[in-house]
Amino acid sequence: MTLESTAGTPADQPSQPDPFSPEPYSPEPFSAVELIRTKRDGGVLGDAEVDWLIDAYTRGTVGDEQMAAMTMAIFFRGLTRPELVRWTDAMISSGNRLDFSSLSRPTADKHSTGGVGDKITLPLAPLVAACGVAVPQLSGRGLGHTGGTLDKLEAIPGWRASLSNAEMLTQLEDVGAVICAAGSGLAPADKKLYALRDVTATVESIPLIASSIMSKKIAEGTGALVLDVKVGSGAFMKTRASAAELAQTMVELGAAAGVTTVALLTDMSTPLGLTAGNALEVRESVEVLAGGGPADVVELTLTLAREMLAAAGRDDHDPADVLASGRAMDVWRAMILAQGGDPDAPLPRARHTEVITADRDGVLTRMDALAVGVAAWRLGAGRARQQDPVQPGAGVELHAKPGDPIKRGQPLLTLHTDTPDRFDRARESLTDAVVVGARADVPPLIIDRVLAER
Amino acid sequence: MTLESTAGTPADQPSQPDPFSPEPYSPEPFSAVELIRTKRDGGVLGDAEVDWLIDAYTRGTVGDEQMAAMTMAIFFRGLTRPELVRWTDAMISSGNRLDFSSLSRPTADKHSTGGVGDKITLPLAPLVAACGVAVPQLSGRGLGHTGGTLDKLEAIPGWRASLSNAEMLTQLEDVGAVICAAGSGLAPADKKLYALRDVTATVESIPLIASSIMSKKIAEGTGALVLDVKVGSGAFMKTRASAAELAQTMVELGAAAGVTTVALLTDMSTPLGLTAGNALEVRESVEVLAGGGPADVVELTLTLAREMLAAAGRDDHDPADVLASGRAMDVWRAMILAQGGDPDAPLPRARHTEVITADRDGVLTRMDALAVGVAAWRLGAGRARQQDPVQPGAGVELHAKPGDPIKRGQPLLTLHTDTPDRFDRARESLTDAVVVGARADVPPLIIDRVLAER
Repeated sequence: MTLESTAGTPADQPSQPDPFSPEPYSPEPFSAVELIRTKRDGGVLGDAEVDWLIDAYTRGTVGDEQMAAMTMAIFFRGLTRPELVRWTDAMISSGNRLDFSSLSRPTADKHSTGGVGDKITLPLAPLVAACGVAVPQLSGRGLGHTGGTLDKLEAIPGWRASLSNAEMLTQLEDVGAVICAAGSGLAPADKKLYALRDVTATVESIPLIASSIMSKKIAEGTGALVLDVKVGSGAFMKTRASAAELAQTMVELGAAAGVTTVALLTDMSTPLGLTAGNALEVRESVEVLAGGGPADVVELTLTLAREMLAAAGRDDHDPADVLASGRAMDVWRAMILAQGGDPDAPLPRARHTEVITADRDGVLTRMDALAVGVAAWRLGAGRARQQDPVQPGAGVELHAKPGDPIKRGQPLLTLHTDTPDRFDRARESLTDAVVVGARADVPPLIIDRVLAER
Repeated sequence: MTLESTAGTPADQPSQPDPFSPEPYSPEPFSAVELIRTKRDGGVLGDAEVDWLIDAYTRGTVGDEQMAAMTMAIFFRGLTRPELVRWTDAMISSGNRLDFSSLSRPTADKHSTGGVGDKITLPLAPLVAACGVAVPQLSGRGLGHTGGTLDKLEAIPGWRASLSNAEMLTQLEDVGAVICAAGSGLAPADKKLYALRDVTATVESIPLIASSIMSKKIAEGTGALVLDVKVGSGAFMKTRASAAELAQTMVELGAAAGVTTVALLTDMSTPLGLTAGNALEVRESVEVLAGGGPADVVELTLTLAREMLAAAGRDDHDPADVLASGRAMDVWRAMILAQGGDPDAPLPRARHTEVITADRDGVLTRMDALAVGVAAWRLGAGRARQQDPVQPGAGVELHAKPGDPIKRGQPLLTLHTDTPDRFDRARESLTDAVVVGARADVPPLIIDRVLAER
């Protein structure tokens, strides 16, 4: 019905901030509580809402407790593709974006979701640079059982991870490859959000993982990106289905941002190569650059190099030939020297070692990546807290890989540490993780290749 | 396989804090992240985990951002009955617990989940006291469209809400009824958690609502508790199913704590009685105590009084007789006087009124509770922020209830306010909320009665 009033005030008076609105009058265009409720109840956030949320969180107007509730709601409800593209864009816009358009060469970048023994960046960056594509590889430090590329390179005497943007550009032009620490100006919203997710059990959300990785990679300004999404016990994604979903999400975020992006799903049920630990992995990487090294490390390095060259439009070189020619080793030496390192200096070695041997004949059926990663971490190769130091020489050396025939008494692993009281805890993590049996069922290294859907 | 070691450290050395454990070494027995992850993934928290979580949150060791993630996880995953009982216990243990065992009479308490025009506590407390049961009614202030009992009584000149525990006990012994503000020592964990839920969109979770209400009520030390769970547009619970679930959860928490507890589901699709607003509702309550007043207010007051007397084991009085005798009015006057109020003082009246009339003949088919509550709130009867003042005289007076025959031009509502520029916004909220039609379908006032399951 129409309500009739017997007395009233003029209906055309100007509208004013309502002192009785559910939210107190605020200069902010949106309410964090309303946005959390929308997501909690399965709704979709609009572009302006996402932009405001990320910006207001970066400014501190939206509190950590509100963003924690939002990320937990996203854990349960997900983000639609348009929400996720906008979320990623907003995180990029929270900071600076690097620009490599002044370089004379195209650029390509690689990102691995992290695994045990994953030293591929070390031989890959100089190899791709030697093929004519610049590689600006901004990397991180390790936390937990997966190692960090910067920790590995810091095992090289004199090498420094921090470069200014100008130094980075000069090195990319002169050497062609740079592996260095990401500056604090890249995607500061992601830095804040990642630290929050870490203490609120909201890390394990595919849209949040994808936007965290891709916001940093897109802000780094590369023109082409190859993603190595690990699958298996030593990886963040334990199943092929979840890894495929993460890969698909990331390649589409790349495509939406105009970055040519491709993802490979690769096996992480067993460690990559024969080493897990900082100096141990540098040594293995140099072996690969010298034309040797474990077959799986060589295979993955060449496969990723081909993908990066193709994504950058420079597939006129065969990286296998370039590797054999020694030109990749030349770039490696120049890259290490440019950042203060001595490529000829002896690498640190741990003061104590312990060998684990086989107790029966058979075939190595299992060498669990997570267990080896945890053992290396406990030996001192990794850190539990961001401020912890790492032992450059600590880690695990493998003497066999799944499928290899094994004789009783044969060494399977050598543990390396400066602090021998850690051997016990390292061995504990390996119980049931190393199995000698009748026959091995070894999965392929390269599981799948994922492109943006058209 | 069993791992054989060729070199090692003694296995029997004392265990030490592990510097490589995922959580930094901490004096705390549990990790908030682990507990959030457990709940997030559908697991169940143990007694010691719940105790620690609530205690550590009260101490500030568990951060607001962690509790926000936990409450959002609980929103999605719920709490099992044993978890919820422990959660409620832990919130009670975070503060003081009142003790009325020194009184010569049994005690009974009533709690309403809140509705529009719900002034039942005002006539009910003195009525039950007049029947021989002490009523320690700790109440709150209104926030949003439902009024607060303390705001209503503060419309009485001189009346004060704050009493010491000693004053409360004396008044309960001498007068039999006290309605006052809850002290800050009761369930401080709930106070902190409620404020957090309010800004993180985690209010709407039945286990969290139930434990919030019941922790306060159990800490208040009553022996018997009657819950009035409102259902309908003006209530927090919009559907009978959700109200029934909340009621069942609360009566079982009461039973688990040894408090005789019963819940009624009552209709809140239309306002209770004919007034919504502080002084307006006091006036109506006094009418009920004088033997008059609207039929629905009288019916609900008597029904709740019978439940409280039965729960306290004192059903030897018929509250209808006691109401008719004037003894409830005597207790009311003594109760108001004991807290500094003048029961004979004229109540405040708003300076401006506006009458809304019917534009057709028919039957009143709808007088929406939420719309009337929002109108009263906008007129000044309620507050948007905790620190806002309220207008004692503001509110809405109803001249008809659903089912009443209506003539065109007849007054339906009178709006009361000291600030006439608010009439427009109040009328806006009533559009489509007051309907005159061919016939009315009026729901029963008392919908259901809920006891703990045996």
